[in-house]
Amino acid sequence: MEILIKTTRRDEIVDITNKVKETLKNSLERGKACLIFVPHATCGIIINENTDKAVCEDILTYLRQQIPKGVWQHDNIDSNGDSHVKASIIGPGKVIPLENNELVLGKWQAIALAEFDGPRDRRVIIKII
Amino acid sequence: MEILIKTTRRDEIVDITNKVKETLKNSLERGKACLIFVPHATCGIIINENTDKAVCEDILTYLRQQIPKGVWQHDNIDSNGDSHVKASIIGPGKVIPLENNELVLGKWQAIALAEFDGPRDRRVIIKII
Amino acid sequence: MEILIKTTRRDEIVDITNKVKETLKNSLERGKACLIFVPHATCGIIINENTDKAVCEDILTYLRQQIPKGVWQHDNIDSNGDSHVKASIIGPGKVIPLENNELVLGKWQAIALAEFDGPRDRRVIIKII
Repeated sequence: MEILIKTTRRDEIVDITNKVKETLKNSLERGKACLIFVPHATCGIIINENTDKAVCEDILTYLRQQIPKGVWQHDNIDSNGDSHVKASIIGPGKVIPLENNELVLGKWQAIALAEFDGPRDRRVIIKII
Repeated sequence: MEILIKTTRRDEIVDITNKVKETLKNSLERGKACLIFVPHATCGIIINENTDKAVCEDILTYLRQQIPKGVWQHDNIDSNGDSHVKASIIGPGKVIPLENNELVLGKWQAIALAEFDGPRDRRVIIKII
Repeated sequence: MEILIKTTRRDEIVDITNKVKETLKNSLERGKACLIFVPHATCGIIINENTDKAVCEDILTYLRQQIPKGVWQHDNIDSNGDSHVKASIIGPGKVIPLENNELVLGKWQAIALAEFDGPRDRRVIIKII
């Protein structure tokens, strides 16, 4: 199963929780957990709060400060060396427990695509395991 | 299956390896791997050494230095902006291989709850997959 | 299933994608996803680009700058405090979706062992789940 996301900024945290839930609801597959995975090298998956949007901004601020643009060897080929480093630290996927085929997420947990080299079209693979 | 952990400090790395092993021993479920997952947005799961407790202190020192308290937008609502950023970087879960329903961990690997906004009561979900 | 890797430098990113693919090809097991896991506390698994080797160097540069050698409490016992912190941030494992028992990886994604305390002999566990 797969979700398509169009990001609109260079870096951006896009809440995909409802899209993942909808995808699971429409599926007949059953399992113990759900893998959310991006087949890309300059974005990742984060699970954190999305009620106060400031949390998303804080995460991006931290990554921008620690991993600034324009100081990487890969920038000689493509101007996204920082995006690759950010994606390596965050990771392309997260595994979430399922109970009765529903995500077991805490009250303050949302699933987000973390874009580090947008705007782009991104694929998010959802795999029940 | 679930473990309950009472943390006692604002940030703290709590070894839960034995509690996870005990939970698996008491379970009749069988599987290929085990997901350890916290349904919280200000703590995470780390796998690393716990024989020399200094390793845990070093990890907390690193995170405190990189992600200091009190400089985040979310602090206007709740004074734990740093805790959310730390939890986003560490991640809420880890997957560990199982062999004959026992954790395949290296000699120097322990499973820990990494608390970033304690003291709190924390749930750790254990899911055989 | 298991792969053995001999690393040759103190820190190094070793592409293991082809070895993982070969191992899966030789296996009769079937599953939904594949866990790649190191049973070690001073190395980790990263998924990112390996076409331009500069990306690997950039990731190591970032980690060396943020987590320098020789300033950790654990260094009193063993001179690899930084290696433990790096491994805790990167994590010991990643889960990748499978489709017809083949890894679902993006065009720019490679699987790598990230060595932070080499040269050493490393085990990489491959578990179909």
